[in-house]
Amino acid sequence: MKFLNIFDPKKKTGKLFEGFILFLIIFSIILMSIETFPSISETHKQLLGRLEHYILIIFGLEYLIRIARSEKKLRYIFSFSGLIDALVIAPLFLTSGADLRILRGYRLLRLVQILKLAKYSSAIRRFQVALSIAKEEILVFLFFAFFILFVAAYGIFHFENSAQPKVFSSILDGLWWAVATLTTVGYGDVYPITAAGKIFTGLILVVGLGVVAVPTGLIASAITKARALETDNQRLSKKT
Amino acid sequence: MKFLNIFDPKKKTGKLFEGFILFLIIFSIILMSIETFPSISETHKQLLGRLEHYILIIFGLEYLIRIARSEKKLRYIFSFSGLIDALVIAPLFLTSGADLRILRGYRLLRLVQILKLAKYSSAIRRFQVALSIAKEEILVFLFFAFFILFVAAYGIFHFENSAQPKVFSSILDGLWWAVATLTTVGYGDVYPITAAGKIFTGLILVVGLGVVAVPTGLIASAITKARALETDNQRLSKKT
Amino acid sequence: MKFLNIFDPKKKTGKLFEGFILFLIIFSIILMSIETFPSISETHKQLLGRLEHYILIIFGLEYLIRIARSEKKLRYIFSFSGLIDALVIAPLFLTSGADLRILRGYRLLRLVQILKLAKYSSAIRRFQVALSIAKEEILVFLFFAFFILFVAAYGIFHFENSAQPKVFSSILDGLWWAVATLTTVGYGDVYPITAAGKIFTGLILVVGLGVVAVPTGLIASAITKARALETDNQRLSKKT
Amino acid sequence: MKFLNIFDPKKKTGKLFEGFILFLIIFSIILMSIETFPSISETHKQLLGRLEHYILIIFGLEYLIRIARSEKKLRYIFSFSGLIDALVIAPLFLTSGADLRILRGYRLLRLVQILKLAKYSSAIRRFQVALSIAKEEILVFLFFAFFILFVAAYGIFHFENSAQPKVFSSILDGLWWAVATLTTVGYGDVYPITAAGKIFTGLILVVGLGVVAVPTGLIASAITKARALETDNQRLSKKT
Repeated sequence: MKFLNIFDPKKKTGKLFEGFILFLIIFSIILMSIETFPSISETHKQLLGRLEHYILIIFGLEYLIRIARSEKKLRYIFSFSGLIDALVIAPLFLTSGADLRILRGYRLLRLVQILKLAKYSSAIRRFQVALSIAKEEILVFLFFAFFILFVAAYGIFHFENSAQPKVFSSILDGLWWAVATLTTVGYGDVYPITAAGKIFTGLILVVGLGVVAVPTGLIASAITKARALETDNQRLSKKT
Repeated sequence: MKFLNIFDPKKKTGKLFEGFILFLIIFSIILMSIETFPSISETHKQLLGRLEHYILIIFGLEYLIRIARSEKKLRYIFSFSGLIDALVIAPLFLTSGADLRILRGYRLLRLVQILKLAKYSSAIRRFQVALSIAKEEILVFLFFAFFILFVAAYGIFHFENSAQPKVFSSILDGLWWAVATLTTVGYGDVYPITAAGKIFTGLILVVGLGVVAVPTGLIASAITKARALETDNQRLSKKT
Repeated sequence: MKFLNIFDPKKKTGKLFEGFILFLIIFSIILMSIETFPSISETHKQLLGRLEHYILIIFGLEYLIRIARSEKKLRYIFSFSGLIDALVIAPLFLTSGADLRILRGYRLLRLVQILKLAKYSSAIRRFQVALSIAKEEILVFLFFAFFILFVAAYGIFHFENSAQPKVFSSILDGLWWAVATLTTVGYGDVYPITAAGKIFTGLILVVGLGVVAVPTGLIASAITKARALETDNQRLSKKT
Repeated sequence: MKFLNIFDPKKKTGKLFEGFILFLIIFSIILMSIETFPSISETHKQLLGRLEHYILIIFGLEYLIRIARSEKKLRYIFSFSGLIDALVIAPLFLTSGADLRILRGYRLLRLVQILKLAKYSSAIRRFQVALSIAKEEILVFLFFAFFILFVAAYGIFHFENSAQPKVFSSILDGLWWAVATLTTVGYGDVYPITAAGKIFTGLILVVGLGVVAVPTGLIASAITKARALETDNQRLSKKT
């Protein structure tokens, strides 16, 4: 089937097709954004809905062609990008009943393809190497982070519940406060007002920041390490 | 005593028992969380209380068996995990008078055991090596951090007390402001309104962030260092 | 033309002239700042405007002399600093119609010249090397950052729109929330109030901080790397 | 003068004296803190004032003895710690007229002595080495940080002044917003409400965080470097 050439990125038709799909991805995301505006009239909304439907059909066709084209069909279908492609076109078959709006969010996943097309594959590989280097540390820190989040949530509930029974009505409010505080976002919708709660906040911040903020530093230093490994490999391959 | 086999992690019964205790730890923490909800009726609260009591009794039995099983009994009792196990079952013997709710917090400490069971012991060891590498720097920075917190607290009180006598009523309010500001949480419940207070805030942030935020970076780079040391040791042991 | 000596930084007259221009840059920025004060009377505003006009004329003369002095005239005109110099004096010829106040902002660009004069050229070169080392990673992370910002914006709009239709009226409000949250600024003007929105915020923070905060760490570690490269080069040049 | 032995840290009397002065420093800082409480009666305030006066007299005596004891008197007087000691006792001679409360702040400087006594001198030296390694970069980044702060302040004033004339009344309000935003504190007392102001905030945060947050990473990585240099020196001294 010569027409499947459009998937061969080495040929001109393939590049044009990739560009067209890229354009549709970005266009469909812009449509998604426009639909959120409250000032849009019902007629325009229907027009947008129809446009989205047509784009999804094109994505669906692309999905079918990709299956037809790939040599190991099952492998593509159950690969990460294959599953994303399937999820993205799911709304085509779920129009009745299910809430389309959540499913629309799937389409954002196609953005990942933009990165695949870009020439930054070496930087992404480096990032994957970095993740595999620091994987264990990041998992341990995430565990500690959840542990500290829970301790913070339970502690602040314990100290503030009697003073602000509506603000800290259960441990869930404490958890929300802990997330906003230990990530240093600090919206200011919930905060301790008792002396005990404030002292507890100070203590948990001293310990907590040293745990919650470390993964960021770990990723950064692991990328540096990954870059160093790459240079070492290049040197070795030059020597031999 | 053959029945003590349940503590031998190499045997199947031991593994099952460890899993059961793990389940109880998580279950008791979920119970703790549920109890904080205000909508729970008195009858349900009593049921939860009784459930917690039974779990504590199992923890108490486990504690006794662990003592019986360990060869150096005193060493276990005064070890870190032994003391945690004792603290956790303390509410069993303190029912009258003392506030049970604070003591319930002790149970969170048992979460640490989950980590022990997990296979991430090498990452934890690396984290301990990192802490011992950066120990001195972290202590020096903590000292400087407390110094800057105090200077910030005294300074903001000095500049804002006359303009906002209720918000900055004493140095303690200044300290609360300093904690929220230098960790960059910034709830927005207390902030300077005078020009002098705002200039002071700007200056203390330039100096303070360079002190309060550094420990996080130190931990991250020390972990990188610890990983490098490990690789060096592995190379050395391979050579010899 | 002997009078062009004022551009020769090796001669005393050249240094004096550079100092004079530097003084005018800072003086004109101070004038810009003073003009923003609402308490300034109309008469003073006119005086400031006239002063600014005279300074621009001097900058214009300097621009002409620089062209006359440079050997490759076109190259200077289209160089980065040449274009800045042209932009800065643009308000002289655009007095009617166009809003002067925006154009005045151009003048801030001349601040860059202060750095050129300073002796920190080696640190700036190191910073440029660091940027070129980490360029790919930073671009990949910026892409991921924009991706996560968009996902966060769409998600929070989806979860909060029905509960707070005025606060989250479109995806733009979601984007504003996402910027304030993922940079951990957290003003507190917009924040989720539904349980689903709060859980979504927690999840997006765990993933998002590991993406949005990493570029900072990358720059810092790349500068360290650039410094190491410099030392290596110095050693190599000493050996030979 | 045998009684000057109290300054010889090798002798028992010297150590006792150092401990006594340390106790007085901490005691005087606690007194400073207590005085800020509004609930303290006039009688207690007078008592605290008298106590502080006595402590200052002891500090004054210590200052005189230190001069008498030191071999190069002028060098001590004009050394950093000598000037601090002089500043601390300054309130003794400035009781009339000048505001004692600001001068009291000087006393915090004596806290630095606590660090000198502690055994963490090697970590402090490492920190000094790190500062000298990263000095140029930190200065360049501080310059850029001030440049970005100014651009942010001028920009936000330009975009928000007409919409919020009271909140952003001059560039100073813009500067206060810029400090609170680029350090990610985000109190929430001032924030943009116009679309243009919000887009500007997003852009300035992308660029600004990469500048304002970098010095922290630089300090952390320079300390790691300083530690490595130390180990290298130790190896070299072992070899020879």
